[in-house]
Formats: sequence, structure tokens, C-alpha cells
Amino acid sequence: MSKPIPAINRYKADLRELNFLLFEQFRLGEILGRGPYEAWGEDEVRTSLAECYRFVREVVGPLNATGDVNGCRLEGGRVFTPPGFKDAWKQLYAGGWKLIGVSPEFGGAGSPHCVQVLVEEFITGSNTAFSMYGGLAHGAGEVIEIFGTPEQRETYVRRMYDGTWGGTMNLTEPQAGSDVGASTTTAKRNADGSYSIRGTKIFISGGDHDLADNIIHLVLARVEGSPAGTKGLTLFIVPKIRVNADGSLGKPNDVSVGAIEHKMGINGSSTCVLNYGENDGCIGWPVGGDEKINQGMPQMFRMMNGARIGVGVQAIGVASTAYLNALEYAKERKQGASITHWKDATAPRVAIIEHADVRRMLLDMKARVEGIRALAIKLAHHTDQVHVLENEDPEKAAYHQGQVDLLVPLVKAYGSDQGFRVCETAIQTYGGVGYTRDFPVEQYCRDSKIFSIYEGTNHIQAMDLVGRKLGQAGGANLQAYLGDIAKFVAKNKDHEVFGDEVKRVDAAQQALAASAMKLLTWFQSGQMELVPLNANRFLEMISELTVSQLLLEGAIIADEKVKSVSKEHPDYAFYEGKKHAALYFARTVLPGVELKAKLMLDEDRSALDIPDEAFATV
Amino acid sequence: MSKPIPAINRYKADLRELNFLLFEQFRLGEILGRGPYEAWGEDEVRTSLAECYRFVREVVGPLNATGDVNGCRLEGGRVFTPPGFKDAWKQLYAGGWKLIGVSPEFGGAGSPHCVQVLVEEFITGSNTAFSMYGGLAHGAGEVIEIFGTPEQRETYVRRMYDGTWGGTMNLTEPQAGSDVGASTTTAKRNADGSYSIRGTKIFISGGDHDLADNIIHLVLARVEGSPAGTKGLTLFIVPKIRVNADGSLGKPNDVSVGAIEHKMGINGSSTCVLNYGENDGCIGWPVGGDEKINQGMPQMFRMMNGARIGVGVQAIGVASTAYLNALEYAKERKQGASITHWKDATAPRVAIIEHADVRRMLLDMKARVEGIRALAIKLAHHTDQVHVLENEDPEKAAYHQGQVDLLVPLVKAYGSDQGFRVCETAIQTYGGVGYTRDFPVEQYCRDSKIFSIYEGTNHIQAMDLVGRKLGQAGGANLQAYLGDIAKFVAKNKDHEVFGDEVKRVDAAQQALAASAMKLLTWFQSGQMELVPLNANRFLEMISELTVSQLLLEGAIIADEKVKSVSKEHPDYAFYEGKKHAALYFARTVLPGVELKAKLMLDEDRSALDIPDEAFATV
Repeated sequence: MSKPIPAINRYKADLRELNFLLFEQFRLGEILGRGPYEAWGEDEVRTSLAECYRFVREVVGPLNATGDVNGCRLEGGRVFTPPGFKDAWKQLYAGGWKLIGVSPEFGGAGSPHCVQVLVEEFITGSNTAFSMYGGLAHGAGEVIEIFGTPEQRETYVRRMYDGTWGGTMNLTEPQAGSDVGASTTTAKRNADGSYSIRGTKIFISGGDHDLADNIIHLVLARVEGSPAGTKGLTLFIVPKIRVNADGSLGKPNDVSVGAIEHKMGINGSSTCVLNYGENDGCIGWPVGGDEKINQGMPQMFRMMNGARIGVGVQAIGVASTAYLNALEYAKERKQGASITHWKDATAPRVAIIEHADVRRMLLDMKARVEGIRALAIKLAHHTDQVHVLENEDPEKAAYHQGQVDLLVPLVKAYGSDQGFRVCETAIQTYGGVGYTRDFPVEQYCRDSKIFSIYEGTNHIQAMDLVGRKLGQAGGANLQAYLGDIAKFVAKNKDHEVFGDEVKRVDAAQQALAASAMKLLTWFQSGQMELVPLNANRFLEMISELTVSQLLLEGAIIADEKVKSVSKEHPDYAFYEGKKHAALYFARTVLPGVELKAKLMLDEDRSALDIPDEAFATV
Repeated sequence: MSKPIPAINRYKADLRELNFLLFEQFRLGEILGRGPYEAWGEDEVRTSLAECYRFVREVVGPLNATGDVNGCRLEGGRVFTPPGFKDAWKQLYAGGWKLIGVSPEFGGAGSPHCVQVLVEEFITGSNTAFSMYGGLAHGAGEVIEIFGTPEQRETYVRRMYDGTWGGTMNLTEPQAGSDVGASTTTAKRNADGSYSIRGTKIFISGGDHDLADNIIHLVLARVEGSPAGTKGLTLFIVPKIRVNADGSLGKPNDVSVGAIEHKMGINGSSTCVLNYGENDGCIGWPVGGDEKINQGMPQMFRMMNGARIGVGVQAIGVASTAYLNALEYAKERKQGASITHWKDATAPRVAIIEHADVRRMLLDMKARVEGIRALAIKLAHHTDQVHVLENEDPEKAAYHQGQVDLLVPLVKAYGSDQGFRVCETAIQTYGGVGYTRDFPVEQYCRDSKIFSIYEGTNHIQAMDLVGRKLGQAGGANLQAYLGDIAKFVAKNKDHEVFGDEVKRVDAAQQALAASAMKLLTWFQSGQMELVPLNANRFLEMISELTVSQLLLEGAIIADEKVKSVSKEHPDYAFYEGKKHAALYFARTVLPGVELKAKLMLDEDRSALDIPDEAFATV
């Protein structure tokens, strides 16, 4: 079946919105020029974003549809990426875009995390499949930067950050998907201090490709004699091609590609089955050396945190361009008359953006996209505060780190769920043409379905939230979170425009707090199984509350600013948009939090109580 | 990119559930052997379903993945369907499966509509793309059966029902998608009484293919001098190859395929651009002859009704097999320990169906699938009552026809929305492998995205509901509908098991009635734009109420029956499943109806009030 490739690059982002978030809502200016961000000023940030946006529209975005159509090829045991990816890879690194948030020690520009997140949004929103290769190389490099021995840092990190080498994360095995502790990959110490690795890993994104000279695999394996479960896992550095002491490349390392997956989307990203040590010739080294044996999970979790934020950002990037494409189409496509002339067959045709249901879909997408982005920037802002404050005020830094920990599962799970929903709505906004490959939204929808699954399914995120994050630091992170919301409510509950909506935030917050208590009761009273049954619901509730609060916070700023802007200035419409999106979300989505809290209190057990054989007679 | 084709046929249906609906919940036995269904007994129905299920598993289902991978080819102006489709087409008709509901006058078996709907569920659930060709031929044939002249009925109908010829519906044009009245295709009367047709139609499913000897296109066109809008449209019979007086085939009719679409899914179904009369050689005849000029829309609506039910049935079929595949996987796939041993790394691995969140997803899918199927069977049951009663009790028949009219948009829109949601959940249940082509659910998800769009987008369904159906017969249909719910509540509100849930139905019904009044107020007070803004929400509310009532009705029957079944009998688990699905839906979905009613009363106008340019600064 021959498939056409859309000629036009369709990637779109709203720079005005990004700059609003950074400078007006999160006041990035207050940390620029301070501590680690001494070299960064507002102009540098704005210019970087504008230039990166231009770059991805010119170079990365146009390869999104071609990558989807052509996919990856496995030939002679090697993976070949789609046409154009190799050249784009070179330009991506030459432009410094993957190094923007990297510490200067490793050749980076050391930007705030907020800025790096938006640069990543551009890269992944314009071409999700392409972005995987560099994203994983970066994440694996970070693990070695943080946990590696000085020699490991020297050998690997810079090359993994600058595109010379790729990188991967290897958790999943055929018999152990979400259940990482069931891993059976083994590691056996050799006389020279290296370890022989044996095992099979699946779903390895970027497990092989032709973009870089080497690929550094990080592989979870169990050293002989280590305990069962996650506590016995060690993280190994396993290069595709062995690296000599001087950093030059040596012999291949007995890592082979068993297969690549054929998927619903992200076809330009190779998803590999990797066989380690089939010929007993695969060696690796523990990240951080022998004293870090059995420390694989904490190391991996550190990497997972970044990867999970990254998945949320993927969802934001794709959802955002899906929304903006649907918006463009809705403004251009003329069809039907205004509802006010519904009985007049000769009434003039109007652009479909004039139809109430199309407006509803557009505003719904706008609110969700801007909401999940605000959530990610809130997280990144806390990260930046950690970096600024960790020396001068460790207590405050700890508060910010706690908020980061709490928000990671929200950004990943709520971001990916809503991102998919936005892509679905974008197709509906287009109508029939949205289902065809002539427009980009059907690919966005296919690509984004994976976000709720990889890097820990969204249920794993929800269990991370309710099982680990809520209780972390004796519950201090949740208390601080609720305290921040309470402060916002106290300050704004009588706001002349948004007072009613702020009061809804208050009601939702109280409902959430009661639900959190309910979770605790279930833990303590041995009704353990009600926790996973309600975990996704609770994650959705806290996310909707946070997003609504963030949208209203932005809207209140916009409401103040719009007063001094003339109606002709583009900012006037921009600020009005912020206000309407916040109203919409607070009035139509936020009330669901209280309903969900009520459903939790009801303790419906039907899904637990139904006998297995009662699901169907097949 | 080479793509593997899953070797195993994955289509699944739950025959026990289908027979429950027909014989225990809707008591089909009461009309079998009566009036038009004189020839049908319970055994015939059960045997037909079992045989058809076997047929689609053996013949149609195995072509679903191959059809997806190979798609259709346009070569030399002709469309070639995927390998195997032509042989399956022959077997489908030879087996009589497309004729089961057709009147004996045209060679059919004259089954109740209920039975036909379930046979269609098998065909379309096992291979949606394949089912399109026969579905459209049947629908177009019905239009000619109902509205055609005696000669037209003689020439076309039987051949379109028995697979000799195909058929299509031609509404959409490039400039007129949902806005059918903007059609510019023209028809000019010739001296011999035929009409010359000129124009371009797009998105024509089965617009060309190699399965049948001829294709009979039904084309909406405007006769010279007819009024603008939908009132000036006439429906024409336009054969691909002209038909001689004796029924033999003559010359080609100047209908050419401009292109075929490349889509997200249903790749085995050809979606064509058709050019009529590019060389001034396309002729057609008005359905029903010259006295039916400008009667195209009512004729088309009759066809659309069937087509819309058909789309709902497509959604049910695909969602059902998606659910049953996910269920099978969840029973087989072992991963993770029970939550009760969450801290013990050596605890035995369990099948994922033992995990609470997987059970929640499974029960959610089960309730939705069985709910939307019950909705469709309720509609079909009303249709059957019309046929049984139209002579002996016209008043009762009118009541049943009114309920059919009311339910059509629910079956189409709610069915397709929920069907897609089920497919998405099925992927999530599988996890990473669900995203690959090794399992069928990613195709189900892609295929089913079109259901919310074609045959009238789901917003068009919602507007049909609130703008036409609610007010039909002076509101009598809605009154009768609410009356039926009230009777159910009165009878069951103190039920020992389901009393609380029945009371929730009552509350939801009152909320719905208030919302219907609100719609009326908006119509009357000139706040017209609030109607389309809330139409989809209202459709969802009435659908959720109906589905919950139907699930509870089934559960109450199951609760009575299970009392006399031994625990070892498979029916015991089956009836328990019905009970739990109804509890789940009434406790977790139904409460949303009251919330949505409240949101309607709030009259949020943010999506209407936001200025166009405020959606984004791009």
C-alpha cells in the first residue's frame, strides 16, 4: 500500500504562551543570574526558545511523517533509522539543543530546567520518534554523571550528552514487564573486575540505530548470589562496542538485536529485543563500581524520574501541536451556517470555529494542553529552586524537592492521559479528513498512545503517588502541597472575576484531603486492595485540582495585566484566552473532583468481588 | 517497512451474553412465530448465531490483519481489495449471512432485526473494513426497496442484497462535509427521462472495489432549478456500469475514481473520491422516479438511520472483541505478586487479572460493551415490535417507532464514543505488547476512531437528538421514554440487591428531565447557542441513564435466575458477572449524570464568549 507523505511541516507551538508561563506566571526572572543560572538572562531564554522552535520546524518536524511511513529497518543485525534522521541528529547536536540544560562541566549551557523542558517539548512535539534516541542517551548519561565512578564519568558522560554515542535503559524482560524485580538477566564477576552479562531485554527504545558511533546500554542484572526481587538488582554499563582505556572504540560486545517491534505509532523509533551474551562475550561494569552492587533500583529510579517527566513532556508537545493544527483548520475550514440562521439554507457559510461544539472542543483542548504544560513547568520550577537553594537554604530546597517528587507521577500519568484525549479531540475537530494521513493529527494520536504505557504504566505512576509519595517525609510533601493550595485560596477567594472558581478549588482540595485520609485508612485497616483500585482515580483528582489551580493562577495574572493593554494589542486576546480557559476548566472539569471523592468514600468493590470466571463465558 | 501479520484469528464474541440479551432480557421468544417472524423459532436463532460466529472466525476474521497491512490499491482507475476479500465475499453471501434480515420477497430469511444486528456484530467485529462493502450495498438496496419504482426494485434490490452488485451512499463533497445542503453536484434531465450527473463526491466507502460485478451508487444531486439547501436535493441511482432493460450489464457510466484515502485505520475499506460525469457521460435516475425530485433528504435519512445503527453495531463488535482479547491476555499473563504480598519479593507471580487495577479496567470494559450492546438490542427490539404490531395495533407500533427514532443517535454516538474508549482501555490492559501489531487491539483502536465521525459526526447525532428527536410528536417520545424508566424504578426501587442503584437511576432520570426542560428554555428564550454547546453532554447523559437502566434490568433477571443454578454450572458465573457489571456502572458512571445536569444548569458560556483570536497566538 503506497502512502502519501504530507509535504508541509505541520509542527506548531505558541511561543507567547511559553514565555507567559516562564516569565509572568513562574517569574523565572527571579532566579536568572543567580547561582547556577548566573550566565542566563531573560533575553537568552527568549532567544533560545525562538531559535529552537525555528530549528525544529525546519529540520526535525518535516521528518515526522516520513519517519512514520518509513519506520526503522533491521538488516543484517543492524537497525537503520528513517531517511533524514542521521542528518537531523547531527544538526540537533551541532545546534546545542540537547546540551542546553547540561552542566558546563560536560560541555552544556547549564540552562534552568524550565527552559530545558520547553526545548524538549519542541524536539519531541515536532518528531516524537526522533526525539527518543537523544532523550534516552541523555537520561542514561545522567545516571553515569550522578552515580558513576570518576573514570566512568570521564569516559562516557560527555560523549552521551553531545551525540557522539547513544544510550538506552534496559529494564523490561519478556517475563517481567512492570514487575522489574522478576528480572532474570545475570551478571558474573570476571577476574579483571568486569562482569559477564547474560539475558534478554525487550522494548528497548533506541536499542540499536545508525545515528551514533556507539550505544551505551544501562542494563539491570542480578549478580550471582544477590537477593531475589528488586533489592538484588545492579545497574551495568554495557557498551555496544567496547571502549578502550583511551576512549577509542574496540571490539563489538556481544549485544545483538533479536527483533524490532512493529507498533501503532512512533514508527521512526526503534523498539528492540536485545540479547546480551548469547556467545558469552558480553561484558559490563557496575555503575559506580563494585560498591554499588545491588544499588541498581535507586539508580534506575533517579533515571526514571527524568524519563517520566520526559514522557509527560512528550505528551504535552504532541497534544499542543495537535491542538494548534486543529485550531488552524477550524479557522480556515468553512462549513455550515451560524446556528442563528439554522433554518435559512441560503445563509452564508462560516468557518467551523464559529460553531459552538467546535469552540467547546477547541477550548477543552486549549485548557488541557496549557494545564498539563503548567503542571510540568511547575515541577521544573521546583527543580530549579532546588538547584538555586540547595547550598544557601537546604530546608527550603528540601521542600522544593518534595514537591518535585510528588509531581513526577502527575506529569507523567495525567499528562499522557490528557495528551491522548487532546489528540482524539483534534481528530474529531477535523472530522473525516482528520482520520486521513493528509493531516497530522491521526499520527499524533497513534504516537501518543504509548505515553500512558512506557516508563511505568500510568497505574504504576498512581501507585508511586499513593504508595510512596503521599507518605514520603511523614506526609510532609502532601501537607506542603495542600498548604500551597490553601494559601492560593485564601489570597484569591474573593477575586472579582474568579472568586467563585477559586472557591471551587477550595472545595476540591477539601475533597482531596478527605480522599487521602481514606487511602490511609485502607492501608491501616488491611483493606489494601482498595488502594490500587482507587489509585488512578486519586491521581486524576490531585492532577485536576492542581491544573485548575495553575490555570486560575495564570488567569488572575492575565486579568491584572489585560487592564493595561489596548484591545488592539495581540496580548489583549492572549490574556483573554488565559481567562476563558481557566473558567472553562474550573467549571466543567474541576467539579468532577468532588464526585470522584464521593465515589472513593462509597468504596464500591464490584471489580474486586466479581469472580474471575464471571467476566465472560468464552 | 515490513510488517508481520498475526497468524491467529483473534476475533471473539460471548454467545452466552448474546443469547441472554435476546431470550432472557428482551424475551424474543414472545415475538418468534408471530406475524413476519412466523418462520423463526428459538432454535433457529440460536443455531444461526452459533453458525455465523463459526463462519466469521474461520473466514472473515483471519483477513482482518492482512486487510489492515495490505490495504486497498488503486491501479488503472480500479480499486483492488486486499488478498482474500473476494473469496470471503462469496462465502459471506453463499452462507446467507447478509440476507438473514432481508424480506423473503427479495430472497432473504426475514429474521427479526435483533438477530440481524447480532449477525452484523459478528461480521463487522471480526473485520470492520471488509464489512463496509456489504453493509453499504445492503443500505443502498434498502433505499431502493422502500422508495424505488417497481422497475427499480425489480432491477436492483435483489442483486444488491445477494452480493451480485455493490452499493454506496454519496453525500459528502469537498466543500460540504457535515453541511450536506451545500452540495453542488448537478443533475440535468435528458430527453429519455434519464438525468446527466456532474460533480465530485468524497469519502465514499466502497466507492470502487473488485468484489462484485457492478456498483450501484446513490448520489445526492441538485436538479436544475431546485431550491438551495437540503430541500433541493434529489437522490439518484447511478450505476458504475449501466444496466440494460433485461438486467444485463451495458457500457461504463463515466464514474471514475479520483483517489483513495490513506487512513488511520479500516485500511481494507476503500474510501474513494468519485468523479461523476467528467466526460459528460454519467447518467442516473431519481429513486422513485420524477415525482420524487427534491425528496432526496427524507430518502437519505431513512438510509442514514440504518447506517447509523450500523455504525453503533460496528463499535459494539470491535469493542467486544477488544475486551474479550484483553480478558484472555489478563488471565494468561503472569506478572507481579498479589497486593497482599507487596513487600515479599519471593511471593508467587499471579495472572494480571488478580491485580485490582486490571480488574477495574476489565469490569469497566465489560459494563460498557454489554451496555452499548443492550442499547442496540433495545432499539432493534422496538423495531421488531413495530413490524409485529403495525397492522394489529398502530398506536403501539407508533410508540415503538418513536423509541427507535429516539435511540438511533444514542446507539451511534454513545456506542462509538464508548467503543473507542474500550479499545483504548484494552491496549492499556495489555501494556506494552498492546501497542504492537503482535496483538489485535491496536488495530481495533485505529479502526474504531472513525465511528465517531462517519455517517454524521457524533455532534450531528447530538443535534439530531436535541433538535429533532426530543420534540418529535410533541415530545411524546421522550415522555414515553421517561415513563418507561419510571415504571422500572417503581417496580424495582426496593429490590433487595439493587434497590440503591435503582434509586440512583431515579435521581439521574429526574436530573435528565430537568436538563431537557433547560434545553427547551434555551430554544424558546433565544439562547440558541447553548443548545449545541450542551448537546453532546445531553446525549451522553441520556445514554448513561439508559445503559445503567438496561444493565440493572439484566442484573435483576440474573439475580432471580442465579438462585436456581448450582455454583458449578457455567451460568452461575455468568449471572454473577451480569450483577457486578450493573453495580459497577450504576455506582461509578451513573452518578456523573447528575453532575452533568448541574453543569448544564450552570450555563457556562466560556467556549462561546472567548474571542476567536484568543485561542492561541500562532
